[in-house]
Amino acid sequence: MASRVDFYFDYISGYAYFAWLRIQEICDRRGVALDIHPVLFAGLLERWGQLGPAEIPPKREWAYKDAFRHARLHGIELSCPKVHPFNPLLALRLSLPEVAGAAQRRVVSAIFRAGWGQGIDLGSPEELAGALDREGLDSAALIQQASAPAAKEALRQGTERAVGRGVFGVPTTFVDDELFWGSDRMEYIELALDGRDPLDHARVREALARPRGADRRKVRPGGDG
Amino acid sequence: MASRVDFYFDYISGYAYFAWLRIQEICDRRGVALDIHPVLFAGLLERWGQLGPAEIPPKREWAYKDAFRHARLHGIELSCPKVHPFNPLLALRLSLPEVAGAAQRRVVSAIFRAGWGQGIDLGSPEELAGALDREGLDSAALIQQASAPAAKEALRQGTERAVGRGVFGVPTTFVDDELFWGSDRMEYIELALDGRDPLDHARVREALARPRGADRRKVRPGGDG
Repeated sequence: MASRVDFYFDYISGYAYFAWLRIQEICDRRGVALDIHPVLFAGLLERWGQLGPAEIPPKREWAYKDAFRHARLHGIELSCPKVHPFNPLLALRLSLPEVAGAAQRRVVSAIFRAGWGQGIDLGSPEELAGALDREGLDSAALIQQASAPAAKEALRQGTERAVGRGVFGVPTTFVDDELFWGSDRMEYIELALDGRDPLDHARVREALARPRGADRRKVRPGGDG
Repeated sequence: MASRVDFYFDYISGYAYFAWLRIQEICDRRGVALDIHPVLFAGLLERWGQLGPAEIPPKREWAYKDAFRHARLHGIELSCPKVHPFNPLLALRLSLPEVAGAAQRRVVSAIFRAGWGQGIDLGSPEELAGALDREGLDSAALIQQASAPAAKEALRQGTERAVGRGVFGVPTTFVDDELFWGSDRMEYIELALDGRDPLDHARVREALARPRGADRRKVRPGGDG
């Protein structure tokens, strides 16, 4: 049986919002520890040399539509942040265990709900403060701590550690050391937590070890081959 | 009601294989026309400046695992092509309507099954010929046609047209002019075909028109903000 779940997210991602709405209940029902890790998605993209979905115009449009369809079908409140992309640094630092402490889940829920559910500007310190206050949290103390050098360093190191574990996107959930990317694989996470992961690891190792046969940069639709 | 489905794919993608296994039945059951478009995924990546999932090491590993989990849970035969990535040009050209004609669905099914189901090398003309022959298709005639300049030009133009429609990945399915990316949104495709797409297009338009607030290349995890 799995002993631990790590959840990596950035508020920039609506899919992270959807996953957040489920991961707590999935862990709590099973009595499994849930560690919550804010990371800077921009830092992951930079590290892996990848574009985010919102940086490819038709993918951005598809992603919004996909999110609205999911929300409608699952009865989820979705307004999307009123500015996007936004600078997520303060929101992420507010959500660090080093800053939020025992209130971490409440902080994360308050920010996700205010941004993705109700549409505040998650890059605005004033609007973030309002969202925290409405949840009965002490926004002034939290923002002061989140603005300290130690919080900046913690987010930097946390993002680095995530890269070191192979996190390439958000949300990413680990069940022990097994990585699950995205908000639409919650079923696999539950199976893994219940000791029923259908994966045959030997087949995966064998497939990953197979030879490469082509370099896609040399393959052209009108070319030889 | 929707009048037409367009399916864009490249054999390089295991997700395209999964979608192919369902899209015919989804269309046929409703009497909806299905147009099948082989495109070069490498050309899409190049056009949008994007990396493929197999080009980010931990994403490649995740994608294989994800595919094996899906196959096991849905009873799908999956061996994966024995060389990957491979040069897909001949396989794609064999699958063009201009080449395969009335046998297009049989050709596409034969190639997908032989590669992803049974593990042949989809970059090998000899192994492709064997796969077509086993399906009772005339591999010699098909390969001759697929190797003609007209076929090369058709694949090039088809990939260009796909980019022009906003295709950024494979598989992509259009229901009339609505784009659905991936193999895990078949439910949305079915809803759209049944005139029950849950999407509120006005909300999407409004969300897409909102202002941008940050440039992620300027946001650093340890930076100001």
